[in-house]
Formats: sequence, structure tokens, C-alpha cells
Amino acid sequence: MSTTTKKWYVGVDLGGTTIKMAFITSYGEIVSKWEIPTNTEDGGIHITMDIAKSIDHKLNELNQEKEHLAAIGMGAPGFIEMETGFIYQAVNIGWKDFPLKDRLEVETGLPVTVDNDANIAALGEMWRGAGDGAKNLLCVTLGTGVGGGIIANGQILHGASGMAGEIGHITSVTKGGAPCNCGKTGCLETIASATGIARLATEAVAVSNEPSLLKEQFDTLGSLTSKDVFEALAKGDHLAEQVLDETASYLGVAIANLSNALNPEKIVIGGGVSKAGDALLEPLRTYFNQYALERVASSAEFKIATLGNDAGVIGGAWLAKQKLTKTHY
Amino acid sequence: MSTTTKKWYVGVDLGGTTIKMAFITSYGEIVSKWEIPTNTEDGGIHITMDIAKSIDHKLNELNQEKEHLAAIGMGAPGFIEMETGFIYQAVNIGWKDFPLKDRLEVETGLPVTVDNDANIAALGEMWRGAGDGAKNLLCVTLGTGVGGGIIANGQILHGASGMAGEIGHITSVTKGGAPCNCGKTGCLETIASATGIARLATEAVAVSNEPSLLKEQFDTLGSLTSKDVFEALAKGDHLAEQVLDETASYLGVAIANLSNALNPEKIVIGGGVSKAGDALLEPLRTYFNQYALERVASSAEFKIATLGNDAGVIGGAWLAKQKLTKTHY
Repeated sequence: MSTTTKKWYVGVDLGGTTIKMAFITSYGEIVSKWEIPTNTEDGGIHITMDIAKSIDHKLNELNQEKEHLAAIGMGAPGFIEMETGFIYQAVNIGWKDFPLKDRLEVETGLPVTVDNDANIAALGEMWRGAGDGAKNLLCVTLGTGVGGGIIANGQILHGASGMAGEIGHITSVTKGGAPCNCGKTGCLETIASATGIARLATEAVAVSNEPSLLKEQFDTLGSLTSKDVFEALAKGDHLAEQVLDETASYLGVAIANLSNALNPEKIVIGGGVSKAGDALLEPLRTYFNQYALERVASSAEFKIATLGNDAGVIGGAWLAKQKLTKTHY
Repeated sequence: MSTTTKKWYVGVDLGGTTIKMAFITSYGEIVSKWEIPTNTEDGGIHITMDIAKSIDHKLNELNQEKEHLAAIGMGAPGFIEMETGFIYQAVNIGWKDFPLKDRLEVETGLPVTVDNDANIAALGEMWRGAGDGAKNLLCVTLGTGVGGGIIANGQILHGASGMAGEIGHITSVTKGGAPCNCGKTGCLETIASATGIARLATEAVAVSNEPSLLKEQFDTLGSLTSKDVFEALAKGDHLAEQVLDETASYLGVAIANLSNALNPEKIVIGGGVSKAGDALLEPLRTYFNQYALERVASSAEFKIATLGNDAGVIGGAWLAKQKLTKTHY
């Protein structure tokens, strides 16, 4: 067993509120995981030092030396130059033109690789989650927004300027679509995110005259969440079914169109909305099969993401391992 | 200069009517190009022998020995297993379960690499054509059908079952679209291929009451081609403009949606329809900018393919060279 095989990798997943961290073996097993708050004060300047101290603290706690760590793989939100680990901008964090990789390497003394947060989640699912090691994988995260990570030939796609995988901004409604945070209208995100589903539900109760659980809920609370939709759905509510069918149809077209271009082996659906499970997967698969080429549909398997909040740190460790083994061997 | 650098590569581009062939230097320069008819008799069994004999014949003509050839890269239509160069099915050729790579290696004594015809055209444009070496490139071929090749991280994407790049079967019209050869309806191919443009034009003259060149042409000939549309357009015909605008809008959405996922540096438009040049590119770019994320749009450049019919043989030579250098060094 080589030294590198015995060493641990550090996965870091930076979010606007917390930084998730873990020590992970070269087989992708979590040895220890923890989180610290994200300190966005002073333009996020303290974050790299916080990470470095937290790593040392955890090593102490586990009675391990720094030498036991091989490298850090980190996911961050925002616009990133992957090769240099330079953050052009990360609005939630406060970073602007921040040399993340360089700073974290200086603070920790470890080699650092940086990628987009949606991408490392996809890599995590590929390595140890629902992706089962598939070399061609499409990862769609349905959370507050809609994110994506595309793995082709075993590599995460970055594109010309690090923007690859922006699946949430595929235009689903070309005319008269709802406004999106990105400045466009009719994006998939306005339909298939938790926020989008809540919006569709609110629209549906406004125009429907049928009695329904969703309408009752709306009349009581004055607003609806995607959770309300899934709860009503579980009780067989017709209006909730109609809302989810609309979401599934647009999502099905978008994923089928991407799949005709990418021919993925696995399509992994993650994020809060994916907790709906089969209630979402079943109509989604039906629409997907309708719009994908037969040979594309027959080689693609839908899966719900299995790693939850651990996907990012595990993907970070994968990234660190890949970088290290590519450089050193 | 190494031996491999001095040697020539053989590019072969197999079509239903002719086989295009060329000897190509390691820098992608065509030394000699020629074509032979495709003999589809007896289930296409004679094709590999025809290619082998033609190569020997051309070597003779050029007074060169077989040793001067390094390898063959070949593009073929149909469903292909790339690693093994096995053709599951190629309807136009007559092949079914045909071990193309193995057969051609036996006939020629040269190492053979096989890929899809749309993919080798994309590789050709990347290497020596409009792609200018871009490592992230989307190639869209608007011919009788609509084909595509996607290059990401410098590699052509094949996907899980060799279907990647089937851009023509992206669903552009989800409800009530025209039937496509693939069995689905509303595919991009039914709108943006030469056939699709002719169909849209025929529909447009049927419902329009305005006088127009396109209508006159239709009344005279009883049918319309895409060429008629582009000729009328060059003369400022309003109805022709309307037809092309419809094509450009669907094509613009499809390419923008793919680009949000792939973030290409170059978007190369080839095939017969691309001869329309700016008449097509200008509205296409406008729609693209409307539907692509700003950062995606600003890093993508549209180009008309420059290699024409040579794209396939040049891409074949690139493929052969890549394979050889990867294996031997």
C-alpha cells in the first residue's frame, strides 16, 4: 500500500452559511466530518484561515499529524477559474477576485484543488453515491435553484469559462415565461426548483375552482411551499398532481434534450425536491422516454442522489485525489 | 523529426454513395485526396477490400511504399461501438453487426480507429477548420438531416452507447410537431435541416396571402427547396425572411440550451444550409444571445464550417494520430 493510499484527503464544501468539511480515505470513506460557520465579514477574507485552523483542530482531536493529510479538494459557489482556483466572484461569500487556491495552500501547506459546488456534488455521487462510478453522468440538483454537473468520459465538464453544467438556465418556456434570477425568463429553474414548484402551485390554486387540499392550505396560510405540494400529492390531491405533472414535463424535456446530446448512463436527481422520490421520478421518466431517442432512453437510468449533504465533501476528496495521482504518477 | 511525424495518416469518410479518402500529414495537410463509389452490394461486405485496394493504388500512383502510412482513421454512419470499431447497424451501407475496424485492419495491415461521421467532421473542423483548435466546441451540421459533434476538454463525446451528439433529435416543438425520421415528433431536424426549411416554406406559402417570390416559385414548380428559400431571401423576400426567422429561433434556443450546459468556445455551423452564411448566422446569434446566459454567450463564437467535404477525412486523420500517439508514447 503506497503512502498516498493510506493518507486522508480533505473535502471542503463552502456554502453561504456553513462550511462542510471531512477527512476522507482514498476509497471515499468518511473518517470524520464536521462543519463550521461561514464568516463572510470583511469580504470573506477570514475563511481560508478558519478552514486551516479547523483542520488542525480536528487533527488534534483525532490525535493525528498533519502528514496524514494528502491534499484538499474544495467546492465553492460563484464564478471560478478552475485551473488556478481563482474566484472571480462569489456573491454569497463576499469574494471578488479572490485567489482561493493560493491562499488556502499558504494557510494549510497542502495542495488545493478548487471546483464549483455543483460539480463536486456530481463527482461525489459518481464516486460513492447513486452514480455507481458511471463515466457518463448527468447530475441535476433541484433545490432553491436548479444546478447541474456533467461528467463525460469520467471528467467533469467546465467549458470555455467554467460555466458548463448550468442546467437550471436552460430555457423551458420561450415566450411569456416567469422571470429568473439570472435576468432571463422561462428558465428551468423557474419551474423545477422548490421555489418554482411553489410558484406553479400558487398559480394553480388561483385559477382552479375545484376543491383541493392545496387550495385549503393556501387559504389557511396565504402561501404555498414545494413541501405542501408533495404532502398534498401523497394524499392523492388532484391539483398537486397537476402541478407536479407540469414540473415533470418541462424537466423531462430538458433532461431528454441534454441526453440526446450527451447520452448519459446515469441521471442523478438530487436536492431537496428529489426527496419526493418516485412521485417525481415516475412522471419524469415517462416524459423523458417520450422526448429522448429510444437508444438514448434505453441506456439511461434515473436515480435519486444518495449522499445528501455529504456529496460535496466526498466529491472534493475525489477531486483532490485525481489531481494528486495525475500529477505524481 | 520522428518517424511518425514524417508518415502520413489515411482519413476515410464513408457515405451512402461515395467513400472520401485522403493521405494527410501529421500537421493535417492533405497530400492527396480522392473518392471511390460505395459498393453496398451483398450487405456492404466489399467495402473494406475496396478501401484497401484503393489505398494501395494511390500509393503506387504517388510512388510511395505502404510503410509511409502510419494509421487509418475512419468515419462511418450508423450505430458504432467506438472502442472496438464494431458497427451494430448502418442502414444506408447495409451493415449489420459488422466488425469494421477488425476487417479493415486485416485488409490493410494498418491500425484503424473508427468513429461516427458527424464526430470526425467536428474533429476536422477543430483541428484545421473553423474550430481553430478550441478544446470546447459544438459542431452542428445542417444538411438533409441535422447532425452534431461535441468536443469537450479536447475530446469528442461518445456517451454511454455512442449516441452523444444527436443534436438533431432535440425536441424543439413539444406538442404537435412534425414527424421525424427517428419516430419522434417536433425534432430540431424537422425545422433546421434543408428538408425542414423546405417544409416550413411550403407551409408558409400555403397560409400566406401576401404576394412573394417564394409563393411565385411554389406556384411555378409545385414544390420548394431550402435553396429556393435562400435565393428568395437574398432578393429580400418577406416570406422567406419569416421562414428563416422561424428556423433561426428554434435553432437558437436549442444551441443556447446546449451551450448553457456545455459552455463551448466555438459553435461551428456546417452542412449545406450553412452556405446561407450571415443570412442564417445573424438571426441565429440574436436568438442565441436571448436564450443563453450572458457569461455563456460572451464566451461563445459562431463560425461557419470552412472545410466543407474535407472535414471528415481530416478529422479521420486526427483521430488516427491521437490514437497512435496515445498508444505509443
